[in-house]
Amino acid sequence: MDWKMEIRPSLDANSGVPLYRQLSGHLQDLIESGSLTSGDRLPPTRELAAQLGLNRTTVSAAYDVLEEAGLIKGSVGRGSFVSGGPRPGAASLDWSAALTSTFSTSARTVRRAAIDFSASRPCEALFPVDEFRRNCEEVLVEPNLRSLLQLGSPAGLEPLRQYILRRSGVARETDDVLITNGCQQAVDLLRRALVRPGVKVAVEEPVYPGLKNLFLESGAELIGIAVTADGADPNSIRRAIDSGARVLVLTPSFQNPTGATIPAANRTAIIEIAHAAGVIIIENDIYSELSYRDIVAPRLKSLDPNVIFLGSFSKIAFPGLRCGWVIAPRPVIARLTELKQLADLHTDQLSQAFLLRFAESGRLDTHQRKMVEAGRERLRAVTQACRQFMPGCRFTPPAGGMNLWLELPDGLDAAALRGLAQQAGVDYLPGSYFSISRRFDNALRLSFAGVDPREIRRGIEILGGLMSEFQSFRDGAPATAPALV
Amino acid sequence: MDWKMEIRPSLDANSGVPLYRQLSGHLQDLIESGSLTSGDRLPPTRELAAQLGLNRTTVSAAYDVLEEAGLIKGSVGRGSFVSGGPRPGAASLDWSAALTSTFSTSARTVRRAAIDFSASRPCEALFPVDEFRRNCEEVLVEPNLRSLLQLGSPAGLEPLRQYILRRSGVARETDDVLITNGCQQAVDLLRRALVRPGVKVAVEEPVYPGLKNLFLESGAELIGIAVTADGADPNSIRRAIDSGARVLVLTPSFQNPTGATIPAANRTAIIEIAHAAGVIIIENDIYSELSYRDIVAPRLKSLDPNVIFLGSFSKIAFPGLRCGWVIAPRPVIARLTELKQLADLHTDQLSQAFLLRFAESGRLDTHQRKMVEAGRERLRAVTQACRQFMPGCRFTPPAGGMNLWLELPDGLDAAALRGLAQQAGVDYLPGSYFSISRRFDNALRLSFAGVDPREIRRGIEILGGLMSEFQSFRDGAPATAPALV
Repeated sequence: MDWKMEIRPSLDANSGVPLYRQLSGHLQDLIESGSLTSGDRLPPTRELAAQLGLNRTTVSAAYDVLEEAGLIKGSVGRGSFVSGGPRPGAASLDWSAALTSTFSTSARTVRRAAIDFSASRPCEALFPVDEFRRNCEEVLVEPNLRSLLQLGSPAGLEPLRQYILRRSGVARETDDVLITNGCQQAVDLLRRALVRPGVKVAVEEPVYPGLKNLFLESGAELIGIAVTADGADPNSIRRAIDSGARVLVLTPSFQNPTGATIPAANRTAIIEIAHAAGVIIIENDIYSELSYRDIVAPRLKSLDPNVIFLGSFSKIAFPGLRCGWVIAPRPVIARLTELKQLADLHTDQLSQAFLLRFAESGRLDTHQRKMVEAGRERLRAVTQACRQFMPGCRFTPPAGGMNLWLELPDGLDAAALRGLAQQAGVDYLPGSYFSISRRFDNALRLSFAGVDPREIRRGIEILGGLMSEFQSFRDGAPATAPALV
Repeated sequence: MDWKMEIRPSLDANSGVPLYRQLSGHLQDLIESGSLTSGDRLPPTRELAAQLGLNRTTVSAAYDVLEEAGLIKGSVGRGSFVSGGPRPGAASLDWSAALTSTFSTSARTVRRAAIDFSASRPCEALFPVDEFRRNCEEVLVEPNLRSLLQLGSPAGLEPLRQYILRRSGVARETDDVLITNGCQQAVDLLRRALVRPGVKVAVEEPVYPGLKNLFLESGAELIGIAVTADGADPNSIRRAIDSGARVLVLTPSFQNPTGATIPAANRTAIIEIAHAAGVIIIENDIYSELSYRDIVAPRLKSLDPNVIFLGSFSKIAFPGLRCGWVIAPRPVIARLTELKQLADLHTDQLSQAFLLRFAESGRLDTHQRKMVEAGRERLRAVTQACRQFMPGCRFTPPAGGMNLWLELPDGLDAAALRGLAQQAGVDYLPGSYFSISRRFDNALRLSFAGVDPREIRRGIEILGGLMSEFQSFRDGAPATAPALV
């Protein structure tokens, strides 16, 4: 190799770092980055010294450092050779054999569509960023900033914990709370606390895949509970428990993906069924603050103190700040807190402090009301557009939340339609994505909350057009404009 | 019950929320909080209307809402009764049977000692909070704040990922990076990706318990590698691999808890041993930027592209912001990113942006140099104090990092001494805390980096005094001042 081309350190005699250290550092970088590789000969000290305008002893000292670090080897009469560094020929390990795999990969596309119904998330255009910025600035000038930046408590920031217990309205004296990186981590910790391989866990079907895959990772056996227009069906729950389910995970209000809500009478019935069998209930309550009707059924946690209750700010505000929580009887929180410490020590403290300030200042409540109004408007847009542009489709408008579950006319495949939709700049998640053992080939989830009402209308109009082409094509009568197929 | 004492809603006729909804909301709160419980009779509508100065139809409408929500039941001629709400007599589930347990609880004390050598963390008094605050404020006024607050990418914030790949000096073209909630989560995801029950994992012994417990949770069989003054012993590694170890987890520089560093020649030998056997190496590099000597041995990752490399800012700056990373071959990062999404969707985005700004502004490098100086001074303080006040103890001063491993004179029990130390306001972690199968009863870990040098000296002096009392007591000659025993 022409090493004279390679060794061009930028040396600074006034930096306080000795020149030989600067040179050895530069050479180490070349070796570690692979620019110099094992077996390469380094220039003789005399030559390199002349080239760089250094004293020869400086270069010798740099070589000594590298030799002591095992990066080069000197040989009398032959010079110095690189002995460490990357091995260009090193065979790669067989990673596919080494890596575990208990679930299939995500159905999400990497590039976002122009009109994207695929993500259950709030509309960022509605974020009150100016108010939030002011809250952050208030937190940043407080004297306790230093301790927020230091290692913290696994259970979460104490004032935020107290705030969440108060705000929840369901916490008892026998309960405690753990702050997690969003509700997703709460479920992860719960399955680590509760599920051994072979344990049977009952979940709504269709189910949010982030829930399904977590329990599968623990070796759980999943039992799907039928979801009707009235949410999880009590008879199906009874059958799941009779089949041995020990844990029951429910989203009673505005379930993802169906949007369905369990009415009050069924909630009482479900609590009684589970209670009689000693089955643990996990209540996912993350959507309930997005209620578009007056009547809110009581939460399961308010009906039974044993219920493990999950909440989050992320469906109203700022999912980019990861903050969720579990409220549960103290022994559960004690174990979850140990697991939290093991998982990642604790949740980011600055974001906890920012969100607490945002909530305590009253801005969270103001924002929540705004998001409910916006959600109601978007729900109206999506239901009207579906009625107008998607004839023959069936859906039950949800009473809150972010998702509408749409069933295409029989025989139409939502995954196939999605391919056309993506080409037309519209995206959603097909029903098959939410399946355990039932099939939802003709269903799809429209996550409407993050999309502007006019875009919702345009997106559904495009979908309706594609659906009609697709139907004509299937029925043997080519559509007038099948350009997209 | 005397319900007249209980029902005192604060009603606001101008709030925009109908009065009947305000009243039903108040009653729902009373029921869900347990102030009104199942079976309690509500006041007749006429009486409550008179008491609150409301129209009777308003109260009736509120009761209708509650009845529809399943919270109360009306009975002709008898009035309305609470039917939902907490059940005061509901038996609690047997949580101790329901909760998994694969590891013992932490040895940490809840209350921090005045002089605390128990936590391996930076000194918060040295945090450059003013500079950091300015960085935060710069980020908060940028136009992309909105997208930082929105749901993000599981792999991490793209500019931070690129920065870390560049800064690491070890990433190849075949590598990729994942941002995690600190290095602890990186290990959690790795054991989920690599360890099935029964897989043998070799770790240094003594070992950081956060590492040990994670692998135990996956059902791994742990093999302890002997640690000498030269770090993990290659012969012990060879034996572990001969016994079937498939994964090798090492902290080559300034290991926690021993502070030991593997010299360059041994690193090459270890890579060769592991490579020949197809064993996966995880290199925990979180302490290496805290080097107190000139010579830094090459990182394992620079010797072998297959190595999985873990880094973090937390040992230099701001562990309260959870940010670490894994650099590894692309197939490994692809799988880890799926697991990351499953674990908690992604790492907090605002903190990622803050840390990136702090690093790119050059303030991180300045701060790192300051922390190295501070660490060196603290190391000097702890070694001098141990030599002066702890006669008969053995230790090898570390070349970097945060921890010094101290062996008490034979027969002295570090856990027993700790009890006395805590009463005297000094804390550390006893050797038994770091054990797998070997015993370290007479050893202890002094985490010196977070303690002021004068406090270090005072703390070690106290420990020395207690040790000498303890020895006298054990040897049958009562100490002159055994007041603390």
